[in-house]
Amino acid sequence: MIYLDNSATTKPCKTAVEAINNALCENWGNPSSTYSHGISALEIIEDSRKTVANFIGAKPDEIFFTGSGTEANNLAIFGCVNALKKKGKKIVSTAIEHPSVLEALKKLKDDGYEIVLLSPNENGQIKEEDLRKEIDGNTILVSIMLVNNEIGSVEPIEMASKIIKEKNSPALLHCDAVQGFGKLPIKVSNLGVDLMSASGHKIHASKGIGFLYKKSGINIHPVIYGGGQEKGLRSGTEAAPLIAGLGAAVKALPDPNKQLTLQQEFYLKAKEILSEVKAIKFNSPDNALPYILNISIDGYKSEPMLNALALENIYVSKGSACAKGHRSYVLSEIGLSNDRIDSAIRISFSRENTLEEIETLKNAILKITEKMRRFKK
Amino acid sequence: MIYLDNSATTKPCKTAVEAINNALCENWGNPSSTYSHGISALEIIEDSRKTVANFIGAKPDEIFFTGSGTEANNLAIFGCVNALKKKGKKIVSTAIEHPSVLEALKKLKDDGYEIVLLSPNENGQIKEEDLRKEIDGNTILVSIMLVNNEIGSVEPIEMASKIIKEKNSPALLHCDAVQGFGKLPIKVSNLGVDLMSASGHKIHASKGIGFLYKKSGINIHPVIYGGGQEKGLRSGTEAAPLIAGLGAAVKALPDPNKQLTLQQEFYLKAKEILSEVKAIKFNSPDNALPYILNISIDGYKSEPMLNALALENIYVSKGSACAKGHRSYVLSEIGLSNDRIDSAIRISFSRENTLEEIETLKNAILKITEKMRRFKK
Repeated sequence: MIYLDNSATTKPCKTAVEAINNALCENWGNPSSTYSHGISALEIIEDSRKTVANFIGAKPDEIFFTGSGTEANNLAIFGCVNALKKKGKKIVSTAIEHPSVLEALKKLKDDGYEIVLLSPNENGQIKEEDLRKEIDGNTILVSIMLVNNEIGSVEPIEMASKIIKEKNSPALLHCDAVQGFGKLPIKVSNLGVDLMSASGHKIHASKGIGFLYKKSGINIHPVIYGGGQEKGLRSGTEAAPLIAGLGAAVKALPDPNKQLTLQQEFYLKAKEILSEVKAIKFNSPDNALPYILNISIDGYKSEPMLNALALENIYVSKGSACAKGHRSYVLSEIGLSNDRIDSAIRISFSRENTLEEIETLKNAILKITEKMRRFKK
Repeated sequence: MIYLDNSATTKPCKTAVEAINNALCENWGNPSSTYSHGISALEIIEDSRKTVANFIGAKPDEIFFTGSGTEANNLAIFGCVNALKKKGKKIVSTAIEHPSVLEALKKLKDDGYEIVLLSPNENGQIKEEDLRKEIDGNTILVSIMLVNNEIGSVEPIEMASKIIKEKNSPALLHCDAVQGFGKLPIKVSNLGVDLMSASGHKIHASKGIGFLYKKSGINIHPVIYGGGQEKGLRSGTEAAPLIAGLGAAVKALPDPNKQLTLQQEFYLKAKEILSEVKAIKFNSPDNALPYILNISIDGYKSEPMLNALALENIYVSKGSACAKGHRSYVLSEIGLSNDRIDSAIRISFSRENTLEEIETLKNAILKITEKMRRFKK
């Protein structure tokens, strides 16, 4: 199997699986219990919290575990808006966010909030002048993704933070960092975010675990109420095994600066290899995160191409796994033609992919396009 | 280790752990992906959904996986109220619900809803006349637990269902079945519920997984928005490994009718053994679910007793793991004195506990009370 859909999900790493098994088979007590068997479960959770916090330059008590990146995004958005609703009615975000942000904002629009969705430039990046125009004294939330999940564009979070301060806006800055966490060298203080979401299963932890970074002193409301776990912000018995796995996966991450340099080299070489296929056009911008490469194969629709590649045991995707069946709004937003969108494929890498695999992909595309061409005649 | 705190959490069973590992190491694709590697992950989820549905006499498409029993309770409560808010403002529940229900209701009270919390009789059961008095045409939600988590009282869900119909109330009936699922032979149609919550980690699955049963045709709103997983009711990439584990744990459950008879015998014998300790008074009603035995040890405060038992490697609890530190409102509601509440201990069984373990518990209590008595002198 050649797996090139790592932005959809990744294979859990060995140490994550081991940590999960330890929490299932040995330290399976209830973290809220006061005796040693419960306390050892709690310690594992707190160890993971520390690991995650350290990795992004945060304090452990700024990390709140959730059941997914989606839940972390919802908690950030609804939690912020419910806490700040007396201060304003405007929310500024982008038209290329993940559905977990866009659908939450749609719900808020139904509730009477003013939602402004900024369009990106042709590189998939939100424009400074738009941020400057829209962020104002009535804005209570600015929510911008760190890395777009379909094309890999890296968004100007620091600039949004700067503009919020300049404008003296009451807005909190939330960043959906699901695709950037573990790949870009993120320090929350450099980004200037108040809230940041991430997910475990994009970095070789399990599905079913995410977290929200919430800056100390920032007050947001919970979405799920109950026994007061996660300092009251996310009640429910902690998913201790998955939290343990997340901690282990983060510990297993290579140094993000070094890895990014290596990955950049890999990415350029991968593009070079794929360039040998004349029909391939690159949809990802040149300055994309080098883990996501969106291409169109001119004249070949995505769906049959994906299926043909899958038959060769090569897995790529049409776009976001969370937007099945619909034409990509992200590719549309960066101004691509419908033909080009309909032939788009997202190739997304993990640190384990090799250039040999890209060669195999290239050859498979050549073989499939050849076959399809003949079939058409 | 003698583990008698199974209402707090249980040890994941072997088959659940195996199913989790399979989903982590083999079938780890994204269930939303359209190629075979994703589809096999989806199939595992749908297989679990079928297993869970069969077990409670529901259809697979009536089962919605969540990140915890708490989240299922929140989804039922907020989801129902947001869907029915134009039909009424009143919610009827009980004063002995789990915090995940009570805290959600508190939030709704702040939002302007009328919350009626019925008190139980001395057996911990809600009274028919109270239900009859409070459920009316303005009531949009009736939320009653199946089994109380501290004393094991079984609540009259069928009666609540009958009264809702008799009164022609628009109310949906929600049942928090976290402590009853897998133990009582539950069929949703017999209970007459519209919504029912349960949790995996109380029945030897992992922490981090729960589900909501929602009767076909009933419409509630989501709490978490996004990519539309779980038919739009609970977005976020599915926690496939934990869902797989839940399915395996449910498959491993013994026949609930046979098991209940065996457990009832065990429970009576356990009470007989513990009766040999003169200081022990039983707080659970005679007709409690035979998995939860709440006792008070006259003259001995809970906390030091728990700690002393933990030193003997025997784990019991003071009450709910989710209500750390506070005096039990459940024991207070059934009319126990503060002295008795302050010396209360919850012993909660799994199908794996033995009478030898209860003998050991009894002897440990005798030893500890003897020691403490001497120390007092």
